[in-house]
Formats: sequence, C-alpha cells, structure tokens
Amino acid sequence: MGNWRDNLRNIEPYVPGEQPDFKDMIKLNTNENPYPPSPKVMSTLNSFNSDTLRLYPDTNSKLLVDALAEYYKVDSEQVFVGVGSDDVLAIAFMSFFNSNKPILFPDITYSFYNVWAELFGIPYERPELDDDFKIKTEDYYRENGGVVIANPNAPTGVLQDEKFLRDIIEHNRDVVVIIDEAYIDFGGQSALFLTKEYDNVLVIGTYSKSRSLAGMRIGYAFGNKELISAMNDVRFSYNSYPMTRLSVALGAAAIKDDKYFKETTQKIINTREWTKKELKRLGFKFENSMTNFIFVAHDNVRADKIFDKLRKKHIFVRYFNVPRIDNYLRISIGTDKEMEYFISELEKILESDIM
Amino acid sequence: MGNWRDNLRNIEPYVPGEQPDFKDMIKLNTNENPYPPSPKVMSTLNSFNSDTLRLYPDTNSKLLVDALAEYYKVDSEQVFVGVGSDDVLAIAFMSFFNSNKPILFPDITYSFYNVWAELFGIPYERPELDDDFKIKTEDYYRENGGVVIANPNAPTGVLQDEKFLRDIIEHNRDVVVIIDEAYIDFGGQSALFLTKEYDNVLVIGTYSKSRSLAGMRIGYAFGNKELISAMNDVRFSYNSYPMTRLSVALGAAAIKDDKYFKETTQKIINTREWTKKELKRLGFKFENSMTNFIFVAHDNVRADKIFDKLRKKHIFVRYFNVPRIDNYLRISIGTDKEMEYFISELEKILESDIM
Repeated sequence: MGNWRDNLRNIEPYVPGEQPDFKDMIKLNTNENPYPPSPKVMSTLNSFNSDTLRLYPDTNSKLLVDALAEYYKVDSEQVFVGVGSDDVLAIAFMSFFNSNKPILFPDITYSFYNVWAELFGIPYERPELDDDFKIKTEDYYRENGGVVIANPNAPTGVLQDEKFLRDIIEHNRDVVVIIDEAYIDFGGQSALFLTKEYDNVLVIGTYSKSRSLAGMRIGYAFGNKELISAMNDVRFSYNSYPMTRLSVALGAAAIKDDKYFKETTQKIINTREWTKKELKRLGFKFENSMTNFIFVAHDNVRADKIFDKLRKKHIFVRYFNVPRIDNYLRISIGTDKEMEYFISELEKILESDIM
Repeated sequence: MGNWRDNLRNIEPYVPGEQPDFKDMIKLNTNENPYPPSPKVMSTLNSFNSDTLRLYPDTNSKLLVDALAEYYKVDSEQVFVGVGSDDVLAIAFMSFFNSNKPILFPDITYSFYNVWAELFGIPYERPELDDDFKIKTEDYYRENGGVVIANPNAPTGVLQDEKFLRDIIEHNRDVVVIIDEAYIDFGGQSALFLTKEYDNVLVIGTYSKSRSLAGMRIGYAFGNKELISAMNDVRFSYNSYPMTRLSVALGAAAIKDDKYFKETTQKIINTREWTKKELKRLGFKFENSMTNFIFVAHDNVRADKIFDKLRKKHIFVRYFNVPRIDNYLRISIGTDKEMEYFISELEKILESDIM
C-alpha cells in the first residue's frame, strides 16, 4: 500500500522572491515596475464585458500576437506568447533541448534555468563567469545541446554587446541559442534583429518588468517561423488555451501605448543612475547595471547583515545564499521617493554598523 | 548547419474545437456555459484596481485556494489550482506518473490524456469501452503506472457510480488514481469524499463549464496534502506565478455566489432533459448524459453529413473523425432559445435528407 510514492517526481523547486505584504513597505526585491500599467490598460479593464468570460479564449491569442508583431515589426508567425516568460522559457526548453549533450548557461544567471533542465531531464553544464561577472566566450565553443544567455544577465545586471552575441551564435549554429531579454528595455539593444540573420536564435521578452504587468503573466518569444511553430506544437500538447481573455486584451492595450512605456522606462533609468551614484558614495561596488536592479556588495559590511537590517525597516531587497554571490544584494529600482528613503535608511545602517 | 532541427521535440499536438466567430452563430461545440459568469464576477472586475497589476501575483493563489477550500470543506493544503484543468492534469501527469509501467485510461475519453503521455514520455494503454461506452472494470485490475478516469466521461457523457469508482480505486492502491470531474456539476456526485478515505486519489475540477469562466483559465484539484505538495513542487519548478491576479480575484468571487451557480446549472440540466426528448423524437440514440452536452448518433443519417449541414447554418457542434465514434456528434447544451432553434433546424436537415 502507498507505493504510489515510488512514482513521484523528486525535484527541488525554484524558490521565488518573498512577497511580503505590509502597508508601509518598500518592495525592491522582485524587480517589479514601480509605476502602474498604462492608462490604456485601466480603460480596457474597466470597459471589459465580463459576459465574454464564459467563452474559451482564442487558442492563438491572435489579438496579442498581432499587437506584438506590429510593434516589433515581425510577422505574426514569428511571435509566441505564454504565461509569463517563465512559461515561454519552459516551453522553449521542452521544444529545443532534446539532445544527449549538455546545454550550457553560466553558473551565475537566472536560477530557473537549471530547475527546468532538472524537471525535463535535460543534461546541463554551467561554465563559470569571470570575476567581473562576464561570460568567457570560449566556454561556449564546445559541443553542446543548446545555449541559454540572459542579456542583460540576472542577477548581475551585466549587459553584453552585439559582438559577443554574434560570437556565441556563430560558434553554435547547430543548436538553438536562447537570448533571454527580460531586462533589455532598461538601456540595452534587443537582439531581435539577429533572429532575421540566424534561424537558430530565439529571443524572449516579458511584460513583467518594463510594461508593468507582472500580475497578468505575459511573456513572448521571437524567432523564425519554424522555431515558433515547434513551440506552438509543444504548447498545444500541454494547454490549448494558455492565456486568459484578460491577459490578451490588456497585453494588446499595453503595447499600443508606446509613449507611456518610454516615459516610465526612462524614469527608471534616471532613478537607477542616481541610485548608482549614491551607492558608490556609500562604499558599494557593482558592475554597471543596464537593468531595473543593481547587484551590489560592500567592502566592510556583510550583505546578509544589511539584508536583515533593511528587512526590519520593511525595506525588502533580494539576497541569494548561493556560493560566489553570497555577499551581494540585488536591489530593484523603485520610484525616486522610494530610492531616496532606501538610501537614507541604508546610510543609517552602515553608520551604526561601522561605529 | 541547421542541425538544431535534430533536437526538436516531435509531437502530434491536441486539436482543440474550432472557435468560429459569427454574430449570428449558435455555438454548441466546446461545452461552454451559455450563461454569463456571476454578477459578483462582473462587480469584482469593474472595481478592480489596475495599479496592482504591476506586481507579481501571490505565488500560492491563496485567495482562490482558500475560497475553494471553504466551499468544498477541505483544508487549503488539500487544494491545488492551475491555468484551467488542462494545466492541472498536465502537472498531475508529470508529478505522479514516473513509472515504467503503462498508465491506463479508456480508448474513448478526453483526447488530451494521450497527448500529455506522449509529451512527457509516459507509457500508456487504452482499454476499450464496451458498446454502451461503459468502462469494463476488470481492465483496470492489471499492474499499471496510474489510472485516469473522466467521470462523467467525455465525449460520451456517461456517469459511473460510487461503487464503480471504489472498485477501481481498491484495485489500484499502489498508483495515483485521477478522477477528472470537469462535468460533475451537471447531475453527478463528486468523488471528493473519496480523497478523505484514499490517500492516492486526486479529484480534478474546472471553472470552464459550470462556473462560466472558461475565459479565465481556472482549474483545481483536491487530494491529500502529500499529493498536493508534490504537485506544487512540480508547479514551482515550471512556473512560480501561474495564475494572473485577475484569475485569482474573479475565481474567488465566482465561488462565493452559490445561488447563481445552482440556478444556472439547474437551468442547463432542464434544457438538457428537454433536448434529450426532442433528439429521441428525431430518431437519435445516445447514452444518458449527465453533463452539459449530449453525444448522439442517428440510424439513418451520417454524423459528418449533419455536422456539415448545421455548419452551413452557422450552428456549430463537435465531430470527432476517430474510429468507433466517427458517426457521433457532441452537442453542447445552450439556452432554451438556442436549443429550440437548433432542434428545428436539425429537423429540417433530417427531413430534407430523408426525402
């Protein structure tokens, strides 16, 4: 009796950042956008006819796919959408990584990559980043089953340039190369144009950061039609109606408000640059982040100690208790007001600690 | 070059029912509810603060899980939620069916079961239903890696009783037995109480039929805490924020309007019973459906012929071009007005055909 336990899948699940819920908190721990979604999202929501919710959504999420295709100037057949970029990445892993050779991604990167590899039984190796958190390109010249590069990388914030990407791709024309661009809108240039040159490149994006819609779970991918079609085959073998009617409607509305998108991302970039100066003044070191977060260490005070002290003040940042980065904090960029308060409280913590 | 194609996952995806979009159509092809969701859903939607959509949802969907737990009188730890019951079933397959022995489900049942088995590399066998579309219990006495029973079954509409379920479970205490109850609210009794007696039973439900929220993609499962915890581990290894903020909010609102739920399901049951009488009068034969659809064949006129003629009149029903059931139509139950129109048009088709 109870031998059914023998057939359970044993896995170590991904641990998402905590979601504290205090009225007075400053939440800088999960890289959300401090600004609300576009007013167009609000008006679409408030005028939505709930009667239509009795019907299944469009299985192809055409309204959303077409809006993305129009904005990014690609064919609709080159666009895939999913329930956040996590869903898009998971489906890409299932669709493209069915070789016996290991897939490659850095030792320090988005911590979900190895979780999906474990879940789907995909072999993987994690070449080490150098001491400045840069990828050593030659690590990706060896035979492999696929490559995954977050650009800019998380949690380091480091952006690598077009030359670097081309080098990686040119050495990996026989596998699919995934470029995960969750943070690209905060100062980087998308590799979308490389999907036109290389048929084995998939570029992945998300609404959760720059488009202020983490709550609606919308991710997307661009690639040649064959890649997208293979992903849709897997998608429709898993769930034939993945996106809610409201995700499709609000996602399409958000993308049409380009002015708001540019204004809010620029505000975040400005606040980030101000925050960098302040953090430098307080003695923190960090690589030059091109994302909506900064990954920092302090010479004199341990990261976990700062983390705990901030936490007591209801200021939440992210700490990873993981080798090589266990003296770092990842600080999401909030509003100017939030960051000013954060810096002033951080300064107090450092002063009290040094005394 | 281009050898990346060698690593593609080759699969035959599930084909969902077509989603035609005509102003004048009668849509009886995907078992949706003809009535809109509860007015409580509408008021929750219209008063929803879109600013909160910038934040990730609660990873545990606590508001929705607690609402289901309260309504169905179980602990919150015994409840799992997902993006429609398709997502819940897919995760259950991944979580529980990791044996080398084949899982078992009938040859005629929900056509997604074998698609998931293929996708996840799970061996399976499909014992034949008898000529009345009933399961032969003894087919499920053999050694296996798991059992999946849709009750009532789709697309046949046949409901099997508690004695049958107990017999299946008693013979399969060493594997997980999934009871898929997508259609249970239209006249059956849920097997939820069996999850209290048997630690290996998982009961799955959906908001897409009886709760008029197919568009929001909400499914759920009940089982002992250990089963639910194993599913959550897989869930959080795939996508840590699966449910949108609006799915959680609207799902919780819907479950609290029990009066509306009971009124609308009763209306559908009444319309179904009227439709059965009319279909009998027109010479159709069918098992006694306890769902929101009827699965019918006619002695004199081929199903595909009726299907085509209805289609030309913008009346959409479902036809499966599959052995053993290729002379059947699955007709979803609409409003009284829709079914009266459907029956009158069907009568004209039969008359013209016989002449």
